[in-house]
Amino acid sequence: MTTTVRENALKCRDAAAQIAELPEDAKNALLHAMAEALEAGTTDLLAANARDMQGARDKGISEAMLDRLALDESRVAGIANALREIAAMPDPVGQVTRRIQSDKGFSIERVRVPLGVVAMIYEARPNVTADAAALCIKAGNGVILRGGSEAVNSNQAIARCLRGALRDAGLSEHALMLLDDLSREAMLELMQLSDIVDLIIPRGGEGLIRFVTENARVPVIKHYKGVCHLYVDASADLDAALDILIDGKTTRPSACNSLETLLVHRDIADAFLPRAAAALVERGVELLGDEASRQRVPTMAAATDDDYATEFLALKLSVAVVEDIDAAIAHIRHYGSDHTEVIATRDEAIANRFVHALRSAVVMVNTSSRFSDGGELGLGAEIGISTTRLHAYGPMGAESLTIERFVLRGNGQVRHGRGSAAAGSEA
Amino acid sequence: MTTTVRENALKCRDAAAQIAELPEDAKNALLHAMAEALEAGTTDLLAANARDMQGARDKGISEAMLDRLALDESRVAGIANALREIAAMPDPVGQVTRRIQSDKGFSIERVRVPLGVVAMIYEARPNVTADAAALCIKAGNGVILRGGSEAVNSNQAIARCLRGALRDAGLSEHALMLLDDLSREAMLELMQLSDIVDLIIPRGGEGLIRFVTENARVPVIKHYKGVCHLYVDASADLDAALDILIDGKTTRPSACNSLETLLVHRDIADAFLPRAAAALVERGVELLGDEASRQRVPTMAAATDDDYATEFLALKLSVAVVEDIDAAIAHIRHYGSDHTEVIATRDEAIANRFVHALRSAVVMVNTSSRFSDGGELGLGAEIGISTTRLHAYGPMGAESLTIERFVLRGNGQVRHGRGSAAAGSEA
Repeated sequence: MTTTVRENALKCRDAAAQIAELPEDAKNALLHAMAEALEAGTTDLLAANARDMQGARDKGISEAMLDRLALDESRVAGIANALREIAAMPDPVGQVTRRIQSDKGFSIERVRVPLGVVAMIYEARPNVTADAAALCIKAGNGVILRGGSEAVNSNQAIARCLRGALRDAGLSEHALMLLDDLSREAMLELMQLSDIVDLIIPRGGEGLIRFVTENARVPVIKHYKGVCHLYVDASADLDAALDILIDGKTTRPSACNSLETLLVHRDIADAFLPRAAAALVERGVELLGDEASRQRVPTMAAATDDDYATEFLALKLSVAVVEDIDAAIAHIRHYGSDHTEVIATRDEAIANRFVHALRSAVVMVNTSSRFSDGGELGLGAEIGISTTRLHAYGPMGAESLTIERFVLRGNGQVRHGRGSAAAGSEA
Repeated sequence: MTTTVRENALKCRDAAAQIAELPEDAKNALLHAMAEALEAGTTDLLAANARDMQGARDKGISEAMLDRLALDESRVAGIANALREIAAMPDPVGQVTRRIQSDKGFSIERVRVPLGVVAMIYEARPNVTADAAALCIKAGNGVILRGGSEAVNSNQAIARCLRGALRDAGLSEHALMLLDDLSREAMLELMQLSDIVDLIIPRGGEGLIRFVTENARVPVIKHYKGVCHLYVDASADLDAALDILIDGKTTRPSACNSLETLLVHRDIADAFLPRAAAALVERGVELLGDEASRQRVPTMAAATDDDYATEFLALKLSVAVVEDIDAAIAHIRHYGSDHTEVIATRDEAIANRFVHALRSAVVMVNTSSRFSDGGELGLGAEIGISTTRLHAYGPMGAESLTIERFVLRGNGQVRHGRGSAAAGSEA
C-alpha cells in the first residue's frame, strides 16, 4: 500500500504535465467528451447509484444524506451540463493578470499557471466527483479524488466515464485518479506527499477537516461547514425577508449554503416571527429558539448553545431574537463558520456595517444564501467553498486552481553591473 | 508560558481589528511615522546591532551571515525609506477586483480584505522585521514576528521604534508583536493557533521550514531556499550573459535571489566558460564544476551531487555543461527550489520553451536573477518570496497579505421562490 499511494500520485503528476500543456480548445473538447460519456453511461451510472442508495438505506442514513447521494436521469444530465458550462468558461491558464514595464527596461508579466496536482477528500454528493475533475482539468491540473464510502459505486461509475474520455483523447487517464479504497493510513500518506501534491481540499464534516488539518503537510484549503445566518433587521422589508428565509431554509436543506440560523431584531420580532414560523412549519421545518423567540412562538422547542453552532443540513432552524445589529454581529462572530451571512435591511448604513463587521467569505444584503454557489456567482461551477482565509475564500472555480507567477523578459539588464556591490538593506 | 502565547496572539488579533478598520491615509501616516521613528532611533539601533554583531562574531558566524546582519546609517535609512515606499503603494484593502451584475438582478463584488493575523518566523536580516511589520499593517493585518537569535537586539530596537509609532497614533502596540524569546514549545503552540492566526510564513533554511511545515495547523507559505540557475544557451549574447552572471553571483551573495548554479550549452562552453571563470575568480568566487566544465577550466574543483542542490549564500558557484536546453530544464527540475531561473538566449522559441517548461515562481529571459525582489518587481517591498505554490508564488507584497471575498447586494432575490424545491445536481 505504501508504494501504491506514492506511485499513483507520481503517475498523476506526470499525467498532469500533459494536461498543463493542453491548449484551450483541446481542454474544452475533452470536457465536452466527458459530458457525452456521462450521458452515454447513464444506465450504468444509475445502476451503480442504486447500489449506493440501497447500501445507504441499509445503514439508516438520514433523508438529507440520501438526497445528496441520489441520482436520476435529470441529475445525470445536470452533471453533464455542468461540465459543458465549465468548458464554456474562460481558460485561466496563460492569462496575463498584470503587465508592467520596469524602468530598467525589462517587461514583467504575472501569468496564471496550473497548481499541479490537486487532491480532494470529500463526502457524499457524486456530482462533486465530476465537477472537481472537470475544474481541475480546465485549470491544467491533475486530480486525485477520494470520495465517501456511501457513494463509492456512483463515483467509480462517473470516474470510468471521465477516464474513458481522457483515453479517447490520447491522454493518460492518470490525470484523474479516484482512490476510493484508500485506508486511513494511505490517506495520511497522500496528505504528506508535499513533493508531489500541491493542494489538498477536504470537503466535509468536522472529523474529516480535523483529520486533514492535523496531519497534512501538503497545503490545505478547507471546505468546512456552512452555519449560514439570516439577520432580519428592524429596517427590513419583511415580505422580502420572508422570501429569503424560506428559500434559504427549505429549497435544499442538505446544501451547505442553506440557512441554519435566523436572527431577528426585537423591534420587529412580534410582526415577523409568528408569520415566519407559520410559513416554515407549514413546509416541515423544525424550529429551535431562545427564550424571546419562544415567547413569540410558544410551539418552538428550546435551542441549546450547541444548536447555534450546528450545521443541521436538514429541515431544522435555530432562531434568536437580538437587541440590535451589534448583537447580531456578535452572535455570528461567535457561532458562525465564516461561510455565508445575509442581512435583510432597507438601511444602507446598516447594510454596510454588517458587511464590514463580518469576516465571512460571502456576505449578502437582501439576497438568498442559496446564491452562495460557484455557478450563481459567475464561476461556472465550484470545486468547493473555501472557509480557509488563504488563496481562495468562498466558492472556488477553475481560477482558484491556478497560481500567478512572474515572467521577466529583458535584454541583458543587471542590477548593479560588473563593478559595484550591493548596498543598503536590499534583498 | 502556555497561556502567554495564546494571550499574546489574542491581543494581536484584537489590535488587528483596529488596523483593519484604518482608512488608507491613517495607515500611510502611520508608516511615515514609523520611518521617522527608525531614523530618530538610529543611534540606539546601531548600538543594539553592534551587540548582535559582536555576539555573531563570537559564535564564528560566516561572513555572508555577518553581512546580512550588519546595519549602518545608510542601511537604517534604507529601512526607513522602504517603509515610505510601502506607504506610497496603493492600498489593497477594499479594492474591488471584480464586479459582476448577476442576471438575477443582484450585484456581485470581489473585495479585498485583510488576512487577519500573520505570523512570521525568520532568520537574520533585521530589515525584514521592519518590512514585514509595515507590509502587514499596510494590508490591514496584525503581525507576530519571531526573529533569529543572532539579530535579537537589532530586532527589538526596531520593534520598539515601530510600536512607539503605533502608540503615538493612538493604536494598540499589540498589532506588532515581536516574540523573540519564544521557546521551541511556544513556537509549536503559536503555529497551532488556527483559530487566531491566519497565516504563518517561515523564512529561512531547511531546518526551520521543516519544523514549521511538519507542525503547523495554521496555513503555511514557505520562503524556502533560492537555488537559482542561469542557463546560457548556444544562442546567447555571451557579453550579456557574462554581465548577468557576474551581477547574479557577486553583487550580494547572501541574498536568496543570487545565482547558485551556472549551466552552459556545450556548443559555447569553450568560448564562454574560461572567460566567465576568469571574471568570477577575479571577484573571489569559488567554482565547483562537473567533468566537462573542469576540462575547460582545469583550476575548478569537482562538484558533488549535493553541491547542485545547495544554496551557498556565499561567493561560491556550481557549474555544469549541458547537452542542450532539455538537459538544462531537466537539471533545474531536479535540483531547483522553484525560486528563480534565468535563461540567456537570443532565440525567442528557446526562451518560451524555458519559460513554459519550468514551474519556478520567477522565470527570466536575459535579466539578472537579482531582480527577483518585491521592490524591483513593482510590489514596493516584500515580506518574503513564496516557494509554496498557493495563494502567492514568488515575491509577496502587501496585496499577498489580503484575501478576496464576495459581497452581494440585491433587493430580495431568491433562488427558487416559495413554492419550488431544488432539482438536479445543484449545490
